[in-house]
Amino acid sequence: MKKEQYIGKAFILLSFILMLSTALSAQSKATWIWYPGDFEIWLSNNMQNRRTERDTFFSPFWRQDSHYVLIDFHKVFTLSQPEEVEIATEGKYNVKLDGKMLSGFPKKINIPAGKHKLNLKVHAQDRVPAIYIKGKTLVSDSSWLVTFEDKEWIDETGKASDQSGTTWLNAGSWNFNDVQSPPSQFKLSTKPQYAVSKKQDQSGLLLDFGKETFGFIKLHGLKGTGKAHLYYGESKEEALSIDAGETLDKLHINNKVAKDSVINLSKAFRFVNIKLDLGVSMDSASMLYEYLPVADRGSFKSSDEELNKIWDISKYTMELTTREFFIDGIKRDRWIWSGDAYQSYLMNYYLSFDSPTVTRTILALRGKEPVSSHINTIMDYTFYWFLSVQDYYQYTGDKTFVNQLYPRMKTMMDYCLSRRNKDGMMEGLAGDWVFIDWADGLSKKGEVSFEQLLFCRSLETMAVCADLSNDPKGAAEYRKTAEELKAKIFAMYWNADKKALVHSRVNGVQSENVTRYANMFGIFFDYFNKEQKDQVKQSVLLNDKVQQIVTPYMRFYELEALCAMGEQDYVLKEIKDYWGGMLKLGATSFWEEYNPSKKDDEHYAMYGRPFGKSLCHAWGASPLYLMGKYYLGVKPLTPGYQTYSIEPVLGGLKWMEGSVPTPHGDIKVYCSHTEVRVSAETGTGLLKLKSRMKPVCKNATVLSKGDGLYEIALTKGQEYTITYKL
Amino acid sequence: MKKEQYIGKAFILLSFILMLSTALSAQSKATWIWYPGDFEIWLSNNMQNRRTERDTFFSPFWRQDSHYVLIDFHKVFTLSQPEEVEIATEGKYNVKLDGKMLSGFPKKINIPAGKHKLNLKVHAQDRVPAIYIKGKTLVSDSSWLVTFEDKEWIDETGKASDQSGTTWLNAGSWNFNDVQSPPSQFKLSTKPQYAVSKKQDQSGLLLDFGKETFGFIKLHGLKGTGKAHLYYGESKEEALSIDAGETLDKLHINNKVAKDSVINLSKAFRFVNIKLDLGVSMDSASMLYEYLPVADRGSFKSSDEELNKIWDISKYTMELTTREFFIDGIKRDRWIWSGDAYQSYLMNYYLSFDSPTVTRTILALRGKEPVSSHINTIMDYTFYWFLSVQDYYQYTGDKTFVNQLYPRMKTMMDYCLSRRNKDGMMEGLAGDWVFIDWADGLSKKGEVSFEQLLFCRSLETMAVCADLSNDPKGAAEYRKTAEELKAKIFAMYWNADKKALVHSRVNGVQSENVTRYANMFGIFFDYFNKEQKDQVKQSVLLNDKVQQIVTPYMRFYELEALCAMGEQDYVLKEIKDYWGGMLKLGATSFWEEYNPSKKDDEHYAMYGRPFGKSLCHAWGASPLYLMGKYYLGVKPLTPGYQTYSIEPVLGGLKWMEGSVPTPHGDIKVYCSHTEVRVSAETGTGLLKLKSRMKPVCKNATVLSKGDGLYEIALTKGQEYTITYKL
Repeated sequence: MKKEQYIGKAFILLSFILMLSTALSAQSKATWIWYPGDFEIWLSNNMQNRRTERDTFFSPFWRQDSHYVLIDFHKVFTLSQPEEVEIATEGKYNVKLDGKMLSGFPKKINIPAGKHKLNLKVHAQDRVPAIYIKGKTLVSDSSWLVTFEDKEWIDETGKASDQSGTTWLNAGSWNFNDVQSPPSQFKLSTKPQYAVSKKQDQSGLLLDFGKETFGFIKLHGLKGTGKAHLYYGESKEEALSIDAGETLDKLHINNKVAKDSVINLSKAFRFVNIKLDLGVSMDSASMLYEYLPVADRGSFKSSDEELNKIWDISKYTMELTTREFFIDGIKRDRWIWSGDAYQSYLMNYYLSFDSPTVTRTILALRGKEPVSSHINTIMDYTFYWFLSVQDYYQYTGDKTFVNQLYPRMKTMMDYCLSRRNKDGMMEGLAGDWVFIDWADGLSKKGEVSFEQLLFCRSLETMAVCADLSNDPKGAAEYRKTAEELKAKIFAMYWNADKKALVHSRVNGVQSENVTRYANMFGIFFDYFNKEQKDQVKQSVLLNDKVQQIVTPYMRFYELEALCAMGEQDYVLKEIKDYWGGMLKLGATSFWEEYNPSKKDDEHYAMYGRPFGKSLCHAWGASPLYLMGKYYLGVKPLTPGYQTYSIEPVLGGLKWMEGSVPTPHGDIKVYCSHTEVRVSAETGTGLLKLKSRMKPVCKNATVLSKGDGLYEIALTKGQEYTITYKL
Repeated sequence: MKKEQYIGKAFILLSFILMLSTALSAQSKATWIWYPGDFEIWLSNNMQNRRTERDTFFSPFWRQDSHYVLIDFHKVFTLSQPEEVEIATEGKYNVKLDGKMLSGFPKKINIPAGKHKLNLKVHAQDRVPAIYIKGKTLVSDSSWLVTFEDKEWIDETGKASDQSGTTWLNAGSWNFNDVQSPPSQFKLSTKPQYAVSKKQDQSGLLLDFGKETFGFIKLHGLKGTGKAHLYYGESKEEALSIDAGETLDKLHINNKVAKDSVINLSKAFRFVNIKLDLGVSMDSASMLYEYLPVADRGSFKSSDEELNKIWDISKYTMELTTREFFIDGIKRDRWIWSGDAYQSYLMNYYLSFDSPTVTRTILALRGKEPVSSHINTIMDYTFYWFLSVQDYYQYTGDKTFVNQLYPRMKTMMDYCLSRRNKDGMMEGLAGDWVFIDWADGLSKKGEVSFEQLLFCRSLETMAVCADLSNDPKGAAEYRKTAEELKAKIFAMYWNADKKALVHSRVNGVQSENVTRYANMFGIFFDYFNKEQKDQVKQSVLLNDKVQQIVTPYMRFYELEALCAMGEQDYVLKEIKDYWGGMLKLGATSFWEEYNPSKKDDEHYAMYGRPFGKSLCHAWGASPLYLMGKYYLGVKPLTPGYQTYSIEPVLGGLKWMEGSVPTPHGDIKVYCSHTEVRVSAETGTGLLKLKSRMKPVCKNATVLSKGDGLYEIALTKGQEYTITYKL
């Protein structure tokens, strides 16, 4: 036997053992389960009520819902052997085996072989009712069914009612696989970090952690009696501003013996300015970095070092804002904002592909019935929420999630439909925040075209989800409403002179002004015909006279629209200019807003406060998405990457390489002017190339599609090297 | 000065001082406040999840809601002097004075003279967000406004949104007037009680507390290692039945030194059978009686000692079942059942007039949006819930409660309306429990006439409440729907041959059987014409061939219908026979069901269990209501007893006297065959008498109405003695 053969066989054996153990553990992997959406709502309440403004509690201004406090869990199963089953719950509970209540609060039960039904009913107010069941084969997982009302009464003879009409859903779960770590005990991970420089003077100790970070300051060897003040800053200026910084801590120290002290509430900062009263001393200070552990999957590298830096800082910005949920910014709100989260989902599909954080965020944003306001009170944010569900399905193929969410989508859409004006358009009513973007003098009055486009896309999303959820009647209605609305949008807003959609209609009169918003969404929603698209590109997107966008938030869509029209060269320059501009100003994460025309400390101000702006905002990280989808050019064609396309576009780069995560493995792409290398662990792919010669690939067929376009079908597990000429 | 004058002046002075101090204390009486309905829901979850069946947790089978976890409280007020204001909250909070957030978590603030707005925002998950504010004049009370979504955002310049469209309600409160006793700490009162007899033998210690009671057993001088078993019994038989009693406790004792031990969960019992392991000993056992302190207001006494006993035992039955809420029975469910509670409300209006327990119960039963089942899952119980609101308004005149509840009434009615069949009738769908009554072989199939009557009355109630809540359009619609339904009821169910409403219609065919239910409700709903009424009385109510009612629950309405038709003589005999029958069997409180044809231990059985029946059930106490309303004859004519009537009917008694509570004082009535004495602390009354001579009253005008009927107008604060001849 040759050595390679031996290694080969050993590898096969090892693979087999690994597969077997995976199979076994899959079979018996118990996890904590709950009513779907309930833990997510509970956790989001906890998180969103941790915001402070300086030392004052600052809570959301929309309704916060609660979990159901009483849940029935059940599963029907067949055991080939008798089994001892371990039971743990969060909450007061009872156990029913085959319809018969077991005495007391059993922690272990023996179930004989055969077919059985096991019910647990659990009540908890302060935390989410949850269970953990572990036998040799019977375990709690998402195959269990749950309801918040079982409607099982008995009559005066003791006979149970037999048809309750109850809706049972598949249980929710995450990664609480340890009986000792129930959902209510959830905490993000921490690890120690140390300042890269410090400066002590009579006014205090100024620590610099070298970059934007998030966590708990730890004071070592703290001793004496008096107060300690901590002033946090994303900038040195903020940390040194006693009166105007956004966050601070006041501690009352009374330590006869020196001891370490960790701040209760984690904060975002790069600098911290620590001032101790005269009677107080300490040895040093460090921090515990607080983060959500997620896999490191997506990657990008290119011939352009500045772009690589932009990608890395974008990645770090996402790491900081991917927490219990996708939040907006780490310093200030730390809330879940649907419009912000929508972009995080998209970036996440090209970075970590962490689906649980997507579904947690979607569920938390939606909350419970009844709908009494737009999501986050913002009309556009409601629409992004709809869109996020279709994207999630497209990237993950998770149909169960869509099916279980569909009833809450319907009631959310009912709310929107009930708020249309007499012309069937969405217009801000009392309590509706029409946000669009942070932009000087932007009008939110009347029927804003941008809102109608999002509304139309939301209706199309509803039609897709209705089809997925076995509601053909709903699907047909949503589709019809969307078509009618789309026709109205063009009738009302398209201005042939301006070659653009105008911004709004107020009291039935088309406005004069053109803004980028509706026009750029119209591009990648594919609402324009070819001619309109070209007109819009020139008259709006590439027209400097149309008001510039100063938030990374809307630059995301502006650049996406341009990429969708093949303007990668232009977009790359814009990225280097805009995000590169932040880097030149020393950004270590990307900002909530960047207006190149501002100077010095002006960059820190927002909301009428000198340090109001967040210097680490998720929506600042969009290069992750743009590079993955429009440069590496990877996207799913059918849900969950069963089929996908790779359409690499260098956009002026000499070469680039990277990896795009999918539900079942990664897709790798390398591209230079002469060579493309691709491989995928999943699905069936289609490589699309422009080439001045017929590309050559030894293990695949190259199809010519005319006009110098070529296609190569890709099979999973294969590596392809293609020679071509750009 | 004469002595009387002096006393008179002193009395006036004293009264003035009392008035002044009342005014002052009314002005500055701080109380804990919350979002209306939220504490009620939270408390009902706690209470209803305390049920056990033997030693096993037994929870409701309908949805349990939660409070809103984030609440904004505010008040606009004017101070003539600066004021120091104390602040306490249940939950994390912030304080905003005149739109400006105050730093940290202030416990005392100084407010300058002038007009101000004070906002508090409070978050709590495990308990209900609540506040307590106490200044010299500014205090937290129901004049504060609350919301669960303030929708107050700011734009990028820091400008606050100005029109949120938020609905503000008046805060909820009860009697938490002490800052140290916040709502989450609520507990019923307790007082020690002792067994009236005990019997120790080798099998255990059997204690008899002499009558049905409720509370915590206390074991004195408990010592040693081992178990203690407590078996509770409403009857001696139940306490002695180790295997079949409904409730029990198992304690694990490990006391080196003797100590007292109180059971965690209060129980209902008359007897308790205590069995100690050999290694365990104790000195004695007693109990802590657990109760809701309510005023002792209504009274009744008559020439019939058995009737007096029945009234007293009814009163005790109500005392035992009037707790956190009006519950059904104290041994078993201890849940809030709408149909049971409906009767408790009515009895309460003639006993304690404890309105907070009525509103707590109504709010807890309704829960939150969205409606996903009938109340308690029972169709008829939903209808009683509607009826209870109109009754509450009629007896108390509390319009604010109706106004604030009206939106939840509307959605509850929407649910009903959406579940009508093609003929517009209510028929049990999947998940609907059609209860009616516990009765052998009672059909619940198809369109049951009884349910349609209750539905019709509910629609009429909605019309009244819509008018009260400034919704004339709603009122007109409800009224029209009710009228159409009433016409259908008579078209579909009235059978001229049977001279009665038949029981049901199944698949469009009128059923043959006649039951008492629809017919007796038709009487006191006043749905029949005079001729029909007389026919129904003979063909149904006084007809032994129609299936007898064996629950005090439906006997309530049966006897009410007869009283409403002037059959007090007959009803009195029935009361003595039925309730007197339970007394003869040793009842110390009234039962869930009493079927005179049963023997011995058969009386204890129900639901297929030998001791399943509750021997203390609220619906057993209806003589309280019947005696007050139809014998003493007191009822409000306009809401809150602004006007009322007294129509005493002896029904065979030689004399009776009693007192009926109202929102603003009591109404007292004495009546014999020759004399009536009445006085009232409230409203404008109308005394109606039948007399064979013209009644004589020295301080009132007697009006003859013909046919031996006389009326006397009554003014509050006056005592009237009327001589007449029955």
